[in-house]
Amino acid sequence: MVSAMRKRRDAVRRNDLGLPPGTPVYVGDREPTKMRLSVIGYDPIGSWTRTAPDVEELLRYRNPGGVNWINVNGLKDGEAISRLAEAYGIHPLTVEDILNTEHRPKIEEFDDYLFITLKAITWREAGAEEAGGADYEQISIILTRDTVITFQEVPGDSFDPIRKRIESGAGRIRKMGPDYLAYGLADSIIDSYFIVLDRLGTQLETYETRALEESGTRFMRDIQCVKQEIVRMRRSIWPLRESVSALLRLESELVSAEMAPFLKDLHDNTVQAAETVENYRELIAGVLEVNLSAISNRMNEIMKVLTIISTIFIPLTFIAGVYGMNFRFMPELESRWGYPAVWGAMGLIAGGMIAFFKKRKWW
Amino acid sequence: MVSAMRKRRDAVRRNDLGLPPGTPVYVGDREPTKMRLSVIGYDPIGSWTRTAPDVEELLRYRNPGGVNWINVNGLKDGEAISRLAEAYGIHPLTVEDILNTEHRPKIEEFDDYLFITLKAITWREAGAEEAGGADYEQISIILTRDTVITFQEVPGDSFDPIRKRIESGAGRIRKMGPDYLAYGLADSIIDSYFIVLDRLGTQLETYETRALEESGTRFMRDIQCVKQEIVRMRRSIWPLRESVSALLRLESELVSAEMAPFLKDLHDNTVQAAETVENYRELIAGVLEVNLSAISNRMNEIMKVLTIISTIFIPLTFIAGVYGMNFRFMPELESRWGYPAVWGAMGLIAGGMIAFFKKRKWW
Amino acid sequence: MVSAMRKRRDAVRRNDLGLPPGTPVYVGDREPTKMRLSVIGYDPIGSWTRTAPDVEELLRYRNPGGVNWINVNGLKDGEAISRLAEAYGIHPLTVEDILNTEHRPKIEEFDDYLFITLKAITWREAGAEEAGGADYEQISIILTRDTVITFQEVPGDSFDPIRKRIESGAGRIRKMGPDYLAYGLADSIIDSYFIVLDRLGTQLETYETRALEESGTRFMRDIQCVKQEIVRMRRSIWPLRESVSALLRLESELVSAEMAPFLKDLHDNTVQAAETVENYRELIAGVLEVNLSAISNRMNEIMKVLTIISTIFIPLTFIAGVYGMNFRFMPELESRWGYPAVWGAMGLIAGGMIAFFKKRKWW
Amino acid sequence: MVSAMRKRRDAVRRNDLGLPPGTPVYVGDREPTKMRLSVIGYDPIGSWTRTAPDVEELLRYRNPGGVNWINVNGLKDGEAISRLAEAYGIHPLTVEDILNTEHRPKIEEFDDYLFITLKAITWREAGAEEAGGADYEQISIILTRDTVITFQEVPGDSFDPIRKRIESGAGRIRKMGPDYLAYGLADSIIDSYFIVLDRLGTQLETYETRALEESGTRFMRDIQCVKQEIVRMRRSIWPLRESVSALLRLESELVSAEMAPFLKDLHDNTVQAAETVENYRELIAGVLEVNLSAISNRMNEIMKVLTIISTIFIPLTFIAGVYGMNFRFMPELESRWGYPAVWGAMGLIAGGMIAFFKKRKWW
Amino acid sequence: MVSAMRKRRDAVRRNDLGLPPGTPVYVGDREPTKMRLSVIGYDPIGSWTRTAPDVEELLRYRNPGGVNWINVNGLKDGEAISRLAEAYGIHPLTVEDILNTEHRPKIEEFDDYLFITLKAITWREAGAEEAGGADYEQISIILTRDTVITFQEVPGDSFDPIRKRIESGAGRIRKMGPDYLAYGLADSIIDSYFIVLDRLGTQLETYETRALEESGTRFMRDIQCVKQEIVRMRRSIWPLRESVSALLRLESELVSAEMAPFLKDLHDNTVQAAETVENYRELIAGVLEVNLSAISNRMNEIMKVLTIISTIFIPLTFIAGVYGMNFRFMPELESRWGYPAVWGAMGLIAGGMIAFFKKRKWW
Repeated sequence: MVSAMRKRRDAVRRNDLGLPPGTPVYVGDREPTKMRLSVIGYDPIGSWTRTAPDVEELLRYRNPGGVNWINVNGLKDGEAISRLAEAYGIHPLTVEDILNTEHRPKIEEFDDYLFITLKAITWREAGAEEAGGADYEQISIILTRDTVITFQEVPGDSFDPIRKRIESGAGRIRKMGPDYLAYGLADSIIDSYFIVLDRLGTQLETYETRALEESGTRFMRDIQCVKQEIVRMRRSIWPLRESVSALLRLESELVSAEMAPFLKDLHDNTVQAAETVENYRELIAGVLEVNLSAISNRMNEIMKVLTIISTIFIPLTFIAGVYGMNFRFMPELESRWGYPAVWGAMGLIAGGMIAFFKKRKWW
Repeated sequence: MVSAMRKRRDAVRRNDLGLPPGTPVYVGDREPTKMRLSVIGYDPIGSWTRTAPDVEELLRYRNPGGVNWINVNGLKDGEAISRLAEAYGIHPLTVEDILNTEHRPKIEEFDDYLFITLKAITWREAGAEEAGGADYEQISIILTRDTVITFQEVPGDSFDPIRKRIESGAGRIRKMGPDYLAYGLADSIIDSYFIVLDRLGTQLETYETRALEESGTRFMRDIQCVKQEIVRMRRSIWPLRESVSALLRLESELVSAEMAPFLKDLHDNTVQAAETVENYRELIAGVLEVNLSAISNRMNEIMKVLTIISTIFIPLTFIAGVYGMNFRFMPELESRWGYPAVWGAMGLIAGGMIAFFKKRKWW
Repeated sequence: MVSAMRKRRDAVRRNDLGLPPGTPVYVGDREPTKMRLSVIGYDPIGSWTRTAPDVEELLRYRNPGGVNWINVNGLKDGEAISRLAEAYGIHPLTVEDILNTEHRPKIEEFDDYLFITLKAITWREAGAEEAGGADYEQISIILTRDTVITFQEVPGDSFDPIRKRIESGAGRIRKMGPDYLAYGLADSIIDSYFIVLDRLGTQLETYETRALEESGTRFMRDIQCVKQEIVRMRRSIWPLRESVSALLRLESELVSAEMAPFLKDLHDNTVQAAETVENYRELIAGVLEVNLSAISNRMNEIMKVLTIISTIFIPLTFIAGVYGMNFRFMPELESRWGYPAVWGAMGLIAGGMIAFFKKRKWW
Repeated sequence: MVSAMRKRRDAVRRNDLGLPPGTPVYVGDREPTKMRLSVIGYDPIGSWTRTAPDVEELLRYRNPGGVNWINVNGLKDGEAISRLAEAYGIHPLTVEDILNTEHRPKIEEFDDYLFITLKAITWREAGAEEAGGADYEQISIILTRDTVITFQEVPGDSFDPIRKRIESGAGRIRKMGPDYLAYGLADSIIDSYFIVLDRLGTQLETYETRALEESGTRFMRDIQCVKQEIVRMRRSIWPLRESVSALLRLESELVSAEMAPFLKDLHDNTVQAAETVENYRELIAGVLEVNLSAISNRMNEIMKVLTIISTIFIPLTFIAGVYGMNFRFMPELESRWGYPAVWGAMGLIAGGMIAFFKKRKWW
Repeated sequence: MVSAMRKRRDAVRRNDLGLPPGTPVYVGDREPTKMRLSVIGYDPIGSWTRTAPDVEELLRYRNPGGVNWINVNGLKDGEAISRLAEAYGIHPLTVEDILNTEHRPKIEEFDDYLFITLKAITWREAGAEEAGGADYEQISIILTRDTVITFQEVPGDSFDPIRKRIESGAGRIRKMGPDYLAYGLADSIIDSYFIVLDRLGTQLETYETRALEESGTRFMRDIQCVKQEIVRMRRSIWPLRESVSALLRLESELVSAEMAPFLKDLHDNTVQAAETVENYRELIAGVLEVNLSAISNRMNEIMKVLTIISTIFIPLTFIAGVYGMNFRFMPELESRWGYPAVWGAMGLIAGGMIAFFKKRKWW
C-alpha cells in the first residue's frame, strides 16, 4: 500500500536539486529510454520521413521551404537534446523543463519559439493484481517559425493519425504552417483525454454498484485512490485551461490569425474535459454518501432486529424467572391453570409489544 | 442502475476522436434523425414559409430585402450541413460544434456571424417505470447579416410562438432585424427553463415529504440522482451567464445598439435561472440533512425503548434468578411473606427506575 | 408543509412565458391590487400633493420647475402603467421588470433614466398558527431628470418619513434634486432591513435555547426554514452590493457629483446588512452543531446507563443461573454458607465493576 | 445565555433609523460618555498640549505652522462634534459614521480629508463569572492638510506611546507631517491586535486540553462562542486589508510619497493579523474534530466492554438455564460428573470467546 | 501538549510592540546568535572571499567592478545591521522586516533595491521523544545594483552549492550580474522545499498505514499536528506565488531582461511546491476519512457479533426459563421426550435464526 500511495502523491523527489539552473538532467520515475530521432518534412505538394542516428545527422535534413516535424523519443541523453535545442535557439531552462517529466502543463512564449508541455494520458486496463488506472506521459512541443519539435519519453501512438494525415495529404494539414501542426498535435492529445475519462467513468459506475454492497475499509481506500486519480487528472488538465486561454489573447508572429477558431476549439475541449473531471469529483462524493448511507442503513436494521427481539423476550424471561423461584408459598404454582395462564399472559405481552412496534412502524 | 448513472455522467465518448478537426460528424447519444429544411422570410410588410427537399433548393429561397430564418431539423447529414454552412461563410469548426450535441453552451463571435449554442430543456413526466427528469436538446443559432439559421436534433415546439408572432405580425418582431429574431429564439429557450425549474421544484417538494418518512438507501440514491440532475442543469445554464454578459460588452455590427435592453433582459433571466438552480442545491442539501436527522431520530427512539425496558427488567430478572437458586439454606424461601416481599421489592425497583428516567426526561 | 416549501423556493412559475418580450403582465404570487396614483411636487420653497383617478389626469399635474414624485400603488393595470411609462420614455422591458415582482434587485442605467428595483422587507409577527417570518415586497424606483416614479404592489408605510420631511421641509431634501429623493427612498428601504435583521436575530436566539432542549426532526425542519429565510434575505440584499458599487463608478448626468458621499453611505449600509446576513448563516450553522451535540450527548448518557446496568447484572444473573441448576451433585448447594457466600461473591463482582467504571470515569 | 448571544451577533438595532441621512446621533450599545477635548500641536522644534472645555475654545488653539492633533473622547454630544466637523469641512455623513460605533472598518477618501475608522481591540481578562474575551472600541481618524482628529468612545491608553514620542521628540514623528501621525495612530492600533491575538491563542490552548477531557454540550457551546469571537475579530480586521491596499494605490495630496514604505508595512501587519485569525479558525475546527473523536472514542470503549461482557455471559447463562429446567428425564442431571462437566464446558466457551476477541484485537 | 500547540500557532507575541516603526529589534522565538559577516566578490575572471569582524571593516571590501555578495549570519546586533543597511540606502522598515523572523514571505520593490524575504525549510528527523517536523528559518535577500546582501538567523548550508559554483566558475553564475545571484539564492531555497515535501510525504505514508490500525484520540491529534504543519508550510510557500508573479510583471532596472526565463522557472517551481502542499491537504483529509471509516467499521463488526449472539440466545434462554418454572402441573415436564424435544426446538430456532442472518448477509 505504501508504494501505491507513493505513486499517488507527486513524485517530488527530483534528481536535479542542487545543480545549477538549466542543467540538462532527466527527472522522472521511469527508466529513461534511448533517444530515437525522426523528422517529417512536408509542404502542400508532398512529404517525406527520415530517421537519424544522431542530432548532427538530423540537423542536415532541414527542409527550407516547407514544414519540418522533428520527433524525439527517449529523454536519456540530455546532452544530445541540449545540442538539438541550441541549434534551434532554445533556452537551457526550456531543455530542463523538457527533461523534467514531472512538470505541470504549461504554454510559454519565448522570442523565437513557443513551448508547450502537456500530459498524454492513457488508460491502463485492470490486470490480475492491479486495478485499472491512468498512465501519464509528458509530451513537449516546440513551435518555431518553420519547425515543430516534439519530445516524449516512450514512443506512443497518439501522433499516428496525424502522421497518416500528413502522408495522405487528407484534411488541410499539408496546406497550413507549423502552427497548425502544433495545434493538431495538442488537439490529438486533448482528444485522447475523453477516452480516458470514459474509462474512468465506467470504473466509477462499478463503484456505485459496490457502494451499495460493500461496507469495508477497503472500499473506502479504493475510493480514496480514485479520488487521488481524479485529483491528478485535474492537475494535468486544469492548468491547460489558463494556458490555452492565454494563447488566445497572445499576439505572436508564430501563430497566424487564421488559427483563432482552432485555438478556441482547443479551449472548448480543454474546458469540457476539465468540467467532466469536476463532475467526477461530485459523483465520487455522491458515491461516498451512498456508501455511508448503505452501511448505516444495514447497521440500523441489524440493531432494530436486536432491539425488537430483546424487547419482546426480556419481559417474558423475567416472568419465567419469577415462576422459577423456589419460595415455598407461591399460590400460583399450585393452581391447575397457573401454567396455561402464564403462557397466556406471555402471549398477551408479546402481542402487545408487536402491536406497539407495528403502530410505531418499527417492525 | 448502471445505465442510469451512464446517463447522468457526461457522455464523454465522442465518435469523432482521431478525425481531423472540422470533420462534420454527428456526436451524441441519440439516433440522428433525417434532415428537414424550412425557411421563413419576413419584412415589416409580410412573411412567407417554405420547406425545401435539399440544401441547394433551400439556398434559392433567399429573401434579399428582409430577414431569412432557416431552420434545420435533424443533424444526420453532416455533408449537407457543411454545404449550407459554406454558402453562409461558416467555419468548419462551427459546423463541428453544431453536430457535437454534447457541447457546452457558448456564444462565439466570428467576423461574419455570431454562433450561439445552448440547451433546450424539457421536462419528461414520470412514467410507470421511470422517475420524471429533464431532457436536453442542443439548439444552435447562427446570426448573419440578413439570416438566422437554427439547428436542432429533433423538431421541438419551443419556436412555435415565435413562428406565430412572425406570421401574425404581432409585437415588434417583423419591424426588427435578424438580431432581434436570434434574441427572441434564445429568450424563448431560456424562458422555458422556468417551466422545467418549476417541475423540478415540485419534485423537490415530494422529496422533502419523503425525507421525513423514508430511511432507506434508495432515498439516498434518488437524492443523488436529483443532485446530478441539478448539476447537469447548472452546467447547461451557468456558462450562458458569462456568454450573455460578454455579448453585452461586445461591439459587433451584427447586433444593433437598440438590442442593448433586450440583451440585459436576457442576462437577467439567465442569472435568475442560475440562482434558482443554486437555491435548489441548497434545498436538496437541507432535505438530506432533514432525512439524516429523521433516520437518526427514529433510531434513537428505538434504542431508547430498548434501553429503558432492558434497564428495568435486568435487575428484576436477577432477583428472580437469585430466588431460583437451589441452595438448601435460604431463609427467605421458607418465609410466608417471601414471595409477596420479592414482588414488592421488584415493584419498588421498577418504580424507582421509572422515576429516574422521568426525572432525566428519558422516558 | 408542502405549501410551506413552495413559499420558500422561488416562485419560478411565471405567467408571462411565451409572450413577446416587453408585454406588460403582472408576475407574482399575490392578488394584484387596484392601481392608485398620487404625485408630490416640491421645490425649495414649498410642496403640494395630489391624487389622480387615472394616468392621463396624473400627467397634467407636472411641476416644471421643481421635483415630481409619482407614486403608483398596485400593479394590476399593466396597460395604464405602460401609458405612464411611455410618457416618460421608459422602455417596455423596464415596465416588464416593474410588473415582475419576482425580479432580483438591480440598478440599471438607461439613456434617459435610472431604474432601481429592490425589495422592501417587513417582519410578520408570529401568529397563532404560523411562525414569524419576513415578507418581501418589490419596490421599483425610476429616476428621470425631474421626476421620481415609485411602483409598489401594496401601499406600505416605508416612505412616510420621507413624505413628512418633504412636507415639513426638514433636512436638505427640499433643497436637492430628484437624485437625492431617489437616494432617500432607497436608503429608507435599506435602513428598514436592520429592523427585520434584528427581529430575525431575536428569533435565532430562541433557536439557540431550543437547540439544547429539543431533539426532534421538527427542530431540524424549523432550522431548515430559517436557513431558507436567510438564503432568501441574502438574495434580496447581496445583488444590491454590486449594483450600488456600480452606481458609485457610474458617470451619469442623472446623478450629480455631490451625491457621491450619500451613495458611499448607501453602499456601506448595504454591505453591513449583507455581512449581518452572512453572520446569521454562521450562527445558524453553530446552532445546528450545538443541537447535534446535545442530541448525541443525551443519547450517549442513556447508552451509558444501559451499559453500566447490563454489565453489572449480567454476570450476577449468570451466577444465580448456575446455582439454579438442578444437578444432583452440586456440593455448594448443600453447604450452610453457600447462599451467603454467593451473595458475597456477587457483591464483590458488582463492587469491582463499579470501581472499574469509576476509575475509567465512565460512571 | 440569550444575553450572551445577543452580544455575539451584531448589534443591528440602530437608533437612527428613520432619521434623515447625516443626522448626528450616537449609535452603539454603551452609555455614551461626556465629551472631553484635547489638542496637541508640534513641529520639529517643540510640542504643546492643551485641553479645551468646548469646541469653540478648541478651535482657537490652531497651530498654523506645525501639525495639530485633536483628540475627542466621548461621542455623546453629536451637536458639538458636528460643529467641530463643520470647522474642518467634514461631511455630515462622515460625522454620522463617527457616531455609529457599529460601523465596519474603512478608509474613505474625500476631497479635503481622509477618513479612517477602525476598531481598537483589547482583551478582557476572564473574571469570576465570565470567560475572557475581546472588547471592541471604534476609533475614527480624520486626516486633513495640517490636522489629525481622532474620535473615541471611552478614553483608552493605546495612543499614549505616541503622545510620549511627540513630547520627547524620539523617532522621526516630529520631523514628519500629519500623514505620518495618522499612520502612527493606525499602526499602534493594529500592533495591539497581536496582543489580543496572543491572548486568544492562549485561550485556544486551554480549549485543546479541554477537548480531550470534556464531552458535554457546554464545551460545544463554548467552542461556538470562541468561533463567534473569531468571526467578529475577522470582521474587524479583514476589511482593513482592502482599505490599506486601496490606500497604497491612492494618489492623494494628503499622503506624501515618502509614506509609501510605511503604508506597505501597515499592509503587511494587517495581512499578518488577518492570517493569524484565519489560522485560529482552522485551529478551532481541529479542536472540534479532536473533541468529537475523543467523545466517540470514549463511547466506543464503553460499548466494547458491554459487548464483550454480554457476548461471553449470554451463552453461559443459557447453559445454566438449560440445566435449571425441571424435566423429569434429564440424564445429565443424574450424572456424578454433570456439574463439573458443565463448568468445564462453560470455561471452554468463555475461553474460546476471549481467544476470538483477542485474535480480532477487540479486547 | 500545550507547548506543542504554542509552537504550531503563530508566534504572535512580538517584542517590538509599542516601539516606533523602524526600530531595529529582533523578533522571533529563538535565542539570537552573534553576528558573523562575510563577503564574496566575483567577476567573470575570478572570485575572492573574506570575513569581517564588524560592519565598518566589511564596507571597505567593496569590489567596484564585479558582484559583491555580503552574507550576515545572526540577527542579534540590530544596531550593526542598521549601519550596514544605511550604507546601502536601505529603509529602516526593511531592517525591521529583516529582524522580524516571523514575517510572511514577500518580494518588495524599492527605488534602489529589491527586498526578498522567504523561509528556508529544513526537515528535523524524528528523535527519541519528538516526531519529525519542519524547521523554518527566515532568509532575507537584498539586491542592489552591484551587491547582494543575505541575512539569516543561524548559519545554514543551503547556500553552499552556490558558493562552490562561484569559486569553481561552473555554470553561468560568474558571467552574470547580481540579479542572477539573487535568483540563484532564492532558487536554491525553493528547490530545498521539495526535499522537505518528500519527507513530509513519507510521513504521510506512515499515517495512511496507521489510519487502518489505530483508533485512538492520539491519532486524531497527530493528524491535527500534521494538518497544522501543512498549513504552516502553505503559508510559507503560497505568498511567494503572488510575489514571484508580481516580479515577472515588474519593470525594474535592477532585474535585467535576460532574467525573464529564470524568473518564470522560479514561478513554476513555486507553483509546483504550492500544488504539492495542496495535494497533501487533500491526502490528509483522505487519511482522516479512511481512519473514521476504519474505526466505524471495527465498531460495527463488534456490534454485529453482539447482536447475533444476543439474538440467538435470548429466545433460547427464554425457553430454558419456561421449563425452569416450578408449576405443579406442567405436562411437558413429565414427558419422557420433553427434554430432547426442547433441545430439538432450540436447535430449530437457532438454525432458523442463523439462516435468516445468512440470507440477509448479516453473518
